[in-house]
Amino acid sequence: MKVKLVTNILEANDRIAAENKKIFHEADVYVMNIMSAPGAGKTSLIEKTIKGLNGKLKIGVIEGDIAGTDDAQRIEGLGIPVVQINTGGACHLDANMISEVIADFPLKDLDLLIIENVGNLVCPAEFKVGEDMKVMLLSIAEGHDKPLKYPLMFQESSALILNKIDLLPYTDADIGKIKKDSLSLNANLKIFEVSCRTGEGINEWTKWLQSLVA
Amino acid sequence: MKVKLVTNILEANDRIAAENKKIFHEADVYVMNIMSAPGAGKTSLIEKTIKGLNGKLKIGVIEGDIAGTDDAQRIEGLGIPVVQINTGGACHLDANMISEVIADFPLKDLDLLIIENVGNLVCPAEFKVGEDMKVMLLSIAEGHDKPLKYPLMFQESSALILNKIDLLPYTDADIGKIKKDSLSLNANLKIFEVSCRTGEGINEWTKWLQSLVA
Repeated sequence: MKVKLVTNILEANDRIAAENKKIFHEADVYVMNIMSAPGAGKTSLIEKTIKGLNGKLKIGVIEGDIAGTDDAQRIEGLGIPVVQINTGGACHLDANMISEVIADFPLKDLDLLIIENVGNLVCPAEFKVGEDMKVMLLSIAEGHDKPLKYPLMFQESSALILNKIDLLPYTDADIGKIKKDSLSLNANLKIFEVSCRTGEGINEWTKWLQSLVA
Repeated sequence: MKVKLVTNILEANDRIAAENKKIFHEADVYVMNIMSAPGAGKTSLIEKTIKGLNGKLKIGVIEGDIAGTDDAQRIEGLGIPVVQINTGGACHLDANMISEVIADFPLKDLDLLIIENVGNLVCPAEFKVGEDMKVMLLSIAEGHDKPLKYPLMFQESSALILNKIDLLPYTDADIGKIKKDSLSLNANLKIFEVSCRTGEGINEWTKWLQSLVA
């Protein structure tokens, strides 16, 4: 019975996600859904991406959090249109939440809409929101056992961004194992190594993103 | 309607959790539910706790993961009875999952049952499993904004273990802010600073835990 319940919720979600996707495509805006565990650096990546693209793309941002507006304030400080969704108890964004904020954006003026999901390695991978691409971040400090423990997130993502690469010398994380296990789950996964703190690797990432949006 | 659905699930869960708790109390076993984001170091803390207690308490462990048996193998290697629960898609353990594995433990021979929840800062805080105490880990590498973003987890926990304290010099995390915000959410929260990698702070933690079980 529990499985049936979840299936129904996911079917309803998929219908709304398809409607969102249609609206995004008609406005010719590329939509990226960023997912990770709490504290892997999603907001920092968005900040670095906005700065790295330096006006080459017109960007909007949707911030998803259980509570608080810290992340939206960080993005707003960069002069980017941003909407904060507070999910209350819900551990992921769903298509309906996105549907409700679409009208707050000047969609036709945007090239790229970045959606920052709630920090969670599980449920965000199950709920489509109408995105063109899912991207996941993994902090090196989380260790190398994550791909085989949270396989769906790695399977659903088009790109894996290994963040906090500057901490690598101070941890026991085996980056080779992360890559090998990730690619065994998803052979098409594009992998980037970055540090949002030092800026290492950000240029390669933003160039690739720009090529997708174009 | 979505809210009603969630309420029904939680009410059913609470009933089963109360049944579990009764069984645990009759067997005179203390039950600790450990929660954190993915990669904060739950399994490492359990390993260090078992080694630190050095046979002073008879311990059993339940490992919760979406997939995989890595964690259970690590605990089994220490000669401790362990059961792995694979939740499939579910992002948390619930009382029914625990109920189904209770019979696998020699409960009356145990002093302490440690339950390692699925790595997730959201839903595990909502689902009681019959525990005497919830404990949460926060890795310093996750940053200092977590208490205000994931308040329920901090409110529901009796202790907050700040792990990976050895990484503090290499991050921008403000440990004072973490403590201040955590205590503003839960004034009774007992806070420990540890490194499961170097062993720092483990002794203080195990002594406190031992005093609770006794």
